[in-house]
Amino acid sequence: MKQIDGGVCAVEGVSAYGVRKGRDGLAIIQAEGAAAAVFTKNEIQAAPIQVTREYISGGRLYAIVANSGCANTMTGKKGVADARRMAELTSKALGVPKKSVGVASTGVIGRRLDMDLIGGQIKYVSGKLACSPKASMAAAKAIMTTDTRPKQFAIEVDGVRIGGMVKGSGMIHPNMATMLAFIFTDVRIAPSSLDRCLRRSVNKSFNMISVDGDTSTNDTAIIIATGKRGGMKTSIFQEALDTVCMRLARMIVEDGEGATRLMDCTVTGAQTMADARSAARSIVTSPLVKTALAGGDPNWGRIIAALGNSNASVDMERISLDIMDKGRSIRLVDKGEIKWSDAVRKVASKIMSSDYINIIVDLNLGDKRATSMGCDLTCEYVKINSEYTS
Amino acid sequence: MKQIDGGVCAVEGVSAYGVRKGRDGLAIIQAEGAAAAVFTKNEIQAAPIQVTREYISGGRLYAIVANSGCANTMTGKKGVADARRMAELTSKALGVPKKSVGVASTGVIGRRLDMDLIGGQIKYVSGKLACSPKASMAAAKAIMTTDTRPKQFAIEVDGVRIGGMVKGSGMIHPNMATMLAFIFTDVRIAPSSLDRCLRRSVNKSFNMISVDGDTSTNDTAIIIATGKRGGMKTSIFQEALDTVCMRLARMIVEDGEGATRLMDCTVTGAQTMADARSAARSIVTSPLVKTALAGGDPNWGRIIAALGNSNASVDMERISLDIMDKGRSIRLVDKGEIKWSDAVRKVASKIMSSDYINIIVDLNLGDKRATSMGCDLTCEYVKINSEYTS
Repeated sequence: MKQIDGGVCAVEGVSAYGVRKGRDGLAIIQAEGAAAAVFTKNEIQAAPIQVTREYISGGRLYAIVANSGCANTMTGKKGVADARRMAELTSKALGVPKKSVGVASTGVIGRRLDMDLIGGQIKYVSGKLACSPKASMAAAKAIMTTDTRPKQFAIEVDGVRIGGMVKGSGMIHPNMATMLAFIFTDVRIAPSSLDRCLRRSVNKSFNMISVDGDTSTNDTAIIIATGKRGGMKTSIFQEALDTVCMRLARMIVEDGEGATRLMDCTVTGAQTMADARSAARSIVTSPLVKTALAGGDPNWGRIIAALGNSNASVDMERISLDIMDKGRSIRLVDKGEIKWSDAVRKVASKIMSSDYINIIVDLNLGDKRATSMGCDLTCEYVKINSEYTS
Repeated sequence: MKQIDGGVCAVEGVSAYGVRKGRDGLAIIQAEGAAAAVFTKNEIQAAPIQVTREYISGGRLYAIVANSGCANTMTGKKGVADARRMAELTSKALGVPKKSVGVASTGVIGRRLDMDLIGGQIKYVSGKLACSPKASMAAAKAIMTTDTRPKQFAIEVDGVRIGGMVKGSGMIHPNMATMLAFIFTDVRIAPSSLDRCLRRSVNKSFNMISVDGDTSTNDTAIIIATGKRGGMKTSIFQEALDTVCMRLARMIVEDGEGATRLMDCTVTGAQTMADARSAARSIVTSPLVKTALAGGDPNWGRIIAALGNSNASVDMERISLDIMDKGRSIRLVDKGEIKWSDAVRKVASKIMSSDYINIIVDLNLGDKRATSMGCDLTCEYVKINSEYTS
């Protein structure tokens, strides 16, 4: 498995481009093939999700069109008509079948799309589609909102390539977030297998990150497999897809709004996978854990409190807790017994002040484990989100 | 029903006092009578909760002792022994039966109590117990942690009095919070009725507030009824107790860490009470709603997204949304249709910049309703919580 350049355009059969006017960006990625998607679990779902869900039901897409700046959510039947029109304009411009283009939107909720602007951008972008690193970058930039940088990643395994782009930086939470992920591969794979692989990868990656605990109305991950390079063993493909999704998920957390420190939380020794996942997610989501991290404060009791707020079965007298950064590691609780002293505090303070910390909780109740990814909660986050629509 | 002064000492049969040394405060409130309590739903529960749960099982208490500064949580069997000792020292000092004193703690998790300090404070405070407004105030001050002010409230209804004190300002979330509430009444009531009334009131009040979405390990609400003033109709007592608990809950939110603006969220037209409660709580808990409020930003789409993240059944095309402050009101969504214009925006911005805003969501699906209380999320909150243990 090796990392390669070129973003989604590293994958055979994919061309892309994007454009931006102020806050309003638009990207088109053309790739014909087997397709699958995962959407937000928010009860309120954006108009483009309703449309993409319908179009992808046959397991095949020819392209994706995505805009940033306006989420096209809570826009009723008119919003659904706008999303359909956005897909239709794209399919016409590309000369591909009707209802074969996935649509995604991200931005402010409760506004109608400016269809004149969108129409013009579709026309412009479809004329510039190319299969180059630069074209992929243009698309990745066009879907950004509060993101501070474009996010792409691609790998090659046994001659097959997988490349993806993602946007997302706030409203990021387990169960998808305001995140769009568009992933492409040139492997040959049936839509049903592709769907299964995507769901597995999303559960391990995008569903295990948290920036602020809010699940968006627009979250969408779409994968298209062009089949240009033949088949491969599903287990190998799954592992490669996991790698790409994990890396893209990590990029979102790294670009978390206002984040200055990253944390991973690994929960081991859980009775069930659901327990492991719930515990790991609860810890990286806790505002008190996140603010302690922002201040480099080794207030580990908050980790314990957040653990107790998850749905996981816990036994206080069995819990062990370690924190580590890239060079140091310290045990704070050993099977329920507190290991606290001035010496421990000193090391713990240094670790909590690192760029990256890893929290390891051993429940000592079973053999299941899960890892979540998060970041600190800073004043900068508050500032960014106080003035979003202004 | 009229508000009266004097805090918990307004209630016949109650005496109190408190002391503080730096971060470490201790309060004793003596009152013999029928007793009931509600505790945190966090899976990790503090040692004092384990002890109080046992002592209150007979439905009778003689006093409450509470300390601030150290939560006595994750302290294992030794912590439980410390909590027992704290109760025992108090019962000896007061000359009341063993195992008749409720214990509560609040503060940093993962530290043992300083039993020398606690013992000294119990001795001192028990010698100063008095039945005066000043004594009640001393107790209310002693249980504060990051609270910026003591919180007490008392009323009289048909000659019966109910008075309570509360502490709490961060780690505040539905399902109790790092909050301690001690409520007293001179009504004559059976422990089982008292327990039922307390649970009902807590569900409407302390369980409907959120400062930061974190549920603490130490939350405790205890009520003692001295019975000095005879019985009354349960429905009237319930209403009076609701009033006291609602007022105390509101005081916690008003003192929310770093809060500059308060919000109530009323959800009407829900199919079930559970739906109404879940929706109302989800909205006041959302970091994105809270940061929008901090910035006075009428980004109401976030309210809709938070609604969708609750467990409530919703139909996008039926939702109506109004926001109001004390003098203005504006409809933003009318049965799924967006009411957005420059004129609407102008009013909405003014409302979102008020000290107090009320969010009213009508789901138009049934006749159930619930109200939650919250506050904005500011840089100040982040600052307070970045350096708590330092």
